[in-house]
Amino acid sequence: MSGLTEIRAAANQAAVTRMLATDPVLVDVVPALHALPGMTTHTILTSGAPLAWSEYQGGQRRAILGAALYEGLAATTEEADALLAAGEIVVKPCHDHACVGSVTGVTSASMPVWVVEDRATGTRGHCVLYEGSDRERLTYGVWNATVRQKLLWIREVLGPQLSAALRICGGVSVSPIIRRALGMGDDLHSRNTAASAVLFQQLFDPILEANGLTSKTREVLAFLSRNDLFFLHAAMATGKCIADSAFDVTGSTIVTAMALSEKEFAIRTAGTGSRWFRAPIPPLRARLFAGLRDEDTAFMGGESLITETVGLGGLAAAAAFSLQDYSGGSADEMVKITKSMYQITNSVHPLWKIPYLGFKGVPFGIDAAKVASTGVAPRVHMGAALREGGHAGAGLLIPPTEPFREAAEMVDRLTTEVIGGRRRVPSA
Amino acid sequence: MSGLTEIRAAANQAAVTRMLATDPVLVDVVPALHALPGMTTHTILTSGAPLAWSEYQGGQRRAILGAALYEGLAATTEEADALLAAGEIVVKPCHDHACVGSVTGVTSASMPVWVVEDRATGTRGHCVLYEGSDRERLTYGVWNATVRQKLLWIREVLGPQLSAALRICGGVSVSPIIRRALGMGDDLHSRNTAASAVLFQQLFDPILEANGLTSKTREVLAFLSRNDLFFLHAAMATGKCIADSAFDVTGSTIVTAMALSEKEFAIRTAGTGSRWFRAPIPPLRARLFAGLRDEDTAFMGGESLITETVGLGGLAAAAAFSLQDYSGGSADEMVKITKSMYQITNSVHPLWKIPYLGFKGVPFGIDAAKVASTGVAPRVHMGAALREGGHAGAGLLIPPTEPFREAAEMVDRLTTEVIGGRRRVPSA
Repeated sequence: MSGLTEIRAAANQAAVTRMLATDPVLVDVVPALHALPGMTTHTILTSGAPLAWSEYQGGQRRAILGAALYEGLAATTEEADALLAAGEIVVKPCHDHACVGSVTGVTSASMPVWVVEDRATGTRGHCVLYEGSDRERLTYGVWNATVRQKLLWIREVLGPQLSAALRICGGVSVSPIIRRALGMGDDLHSRNTAASAVLFQQLFDPILEANGLTSKTREVLAFLSRNDLFFLHAAMATGKCIADSAFDVTGSTIVTAMALSEKEFAIRTAGTGSRWFRAPIPPLRARLFAGLRDEDTAFMGGESLITETVGLGGLAAAAAFSLQDYSGGSADEMVKITKSMYQITNSVHPLWKIPYLGFKGVPFGIDAAKVASTGVAPRVHMGAALREGGHAGAGLLIPPTEPFREAAEMVDRLTTEVIGGRRRVPSA
Repeated sequence: MSGLTEIRAAANQAAVTRMLATDPVLVDVVPALHALPGMTTHTILTSGAPLAWSEYQGGQRRAILGAALYEGLAATTEEADALLAAGEIVVKPCHDHACVGSVTGVTSASMPVWVVEDRATGTRGHCVLYEGSDRERLTYGVWNATVRQKLLWIREVLGPQLSAALRICGGVSVSPIIRRALGMGDDLHSRNTAASAVLFQQLFDPILEANGLTSKTREVLAFLSRNDLFFLHAAMATGKCIADSAFDVTGSTIVTAMALSEKEFAIRTAGTGSRWFRAPIPPLRARLFAGLRDEDTAFMGGESLITETVGLGGLAAAAAFSLQDYSGGSADEMVKITKSMYQITNSVHPLWKIPYLGFKGVPFGIDAAKVASTGVAPRVHMGAALREGGHAGAGLLIPPTEPFREAAEMVDRLTTEVIGGRRRVPSA
């Protein structure tokens, strides 16, 4: 076992070193079809470990059907359902296409996605653009004429203007924005108020330079300056870019993805590649918008947990005391949450620091083996969704530890096979 | 004495109620000559309780001479000195002209000033525009061709564009910006990073609408988006607007001004009007920029302490943990600082809240009598200046308590005279 422990330590060090060496840059905004590996016109990506089409029954189902109509793949919901059942429209997990999705995570061919690239390695992460703060969004399982109109505006106006701006300025480095935002009360998951403001300070001039001052440009600038969560999807694409740099590191128990479908919580580790370790979703301790009750809410997926996967969100709770009513209940509790996260992480981030903790770096690199041995689960900040569609509030999710234990055991089993010479490369 | 205590309590309540009722709005940016009551072409305002011209010997002297040249009141420094000595150019304290100044605080006729107004009462506060982050500034006692060029740009480009923007959008309400910024790590004195970003989100569109997209407009937008302290002078004008609402409240020991000249710390209280209570300046515990030593620095005045006067800056230390290296040394110490400030204040602000303290309002309304009785002085965040001119760092100032004790005694003496029928209205 000692050999195994040493191999795991070295592998985890290698995985985290790769993740920390990543220098994510917002390089472009491009339709998913052109940006995502393996994407097709008839593919619809969604959040979480994959389910059979018939198992999607709530918000994810509604959003996938909506995306089929939005893309013109079917004329009616019934037709879309039949095509999905027949496999002529294919549902795939975002994570298998260098992508992450918010809530339902539905991503279809013509939707513009952030392209975040580590230029040294070419590793890329992607995520659709934030849909705005309206309660009704495809993200939250709603499809109607208003949602369609907003998606068209994002596709025809916002996406192209951002693309032109990023190309004219040569890209925007994300890590300094995250560093700055952590010093301004963001956790970069439930709260992106500062990061959105800082990104706006950097993007307004390239947007004006690339697109001129037209009424469309003023719409874009107004949208960016008024949506405090706008940066979240850029943070998510960044998280995917960082996590995928450690996608396949033999022997490592470092978590490379945490994701939710309507029905399951699931994780991946560096040592197990694309294999999912699944468990039922635990309750979300959420503070809901006025007038809503717990029974009004429902899970409909979500991959914004990629921010926790790279040390942000719940792991950085002590940076974001403004979220206390949604997460933890008090500043002291948020400090305790972050402190407990150092028990289950491999490292601290050298640049992303928490002022309250004397500028200690955020806990970075969740180690599934440490989660298994301590019984301490990563703390996740996340949004709550209305059962019938829409944004309901935000809260704290404490995932089950079983998938972490299973993953760690699988990593060790694969490593033992390698040591024993029974395998050269662990299958994923 | 019981009568006196009750009168003081009622008067302090009245003073703080007036201050808290103030709703400060950035309404315009106007040359000082047109904005400030009592301003003339030959008046130069400066920080602190007034000194004789001959007593200004350091940075304030250099900045006042520079302003005389800048305004074309003299052709040479020698001529300016002679005119100042002869009283043909008059030096006055900013505070007597509804104005506050940063560091040297030098404010002359053609310099554009923020106009912050409480529309219900017409009370106004003013402050020159932030000069930019170059180490050499008139604010910090430097006068040369580069400083002159920047001041001309502020006068000819920045001021008029901001004026046009504020007039086209009908003004910008300040209190919500301060509320938001306190939740984003600002103390609104040494740190205005968030407030500057939020103000930019609100001003960019009116600036574009009023001025069009020209190269000058892009200069203005770049200046606003890159200067994290830009909001400070708006916060100072806001503080003056709020504090002056309690300028003359008989019997009140609430502090309405704290200010520094090169040589003295001085305060005013609501019950003593424009009278200054003075003391020598204590040492500033500062963290200096790399390579500088304490002996390289010098006091050259400052009235940004108006932010502490309205519950911000050092009083709101627990909102701004990013400043710990400059002020207090640790987050715990900053929490202790803010907690101690509730001992010497009359109230808590109902809107300006500190997330770490469970969203408790900032300590508001410094009571000179409480400072005298507890011996606890207000904690002041402030910038350090280079002896030869320029910005040197930032730190924590703990003023002497004597002026507070003297002011409180004077308030009581004046009140006693009123009670005794010897006076109707206390002279100031």
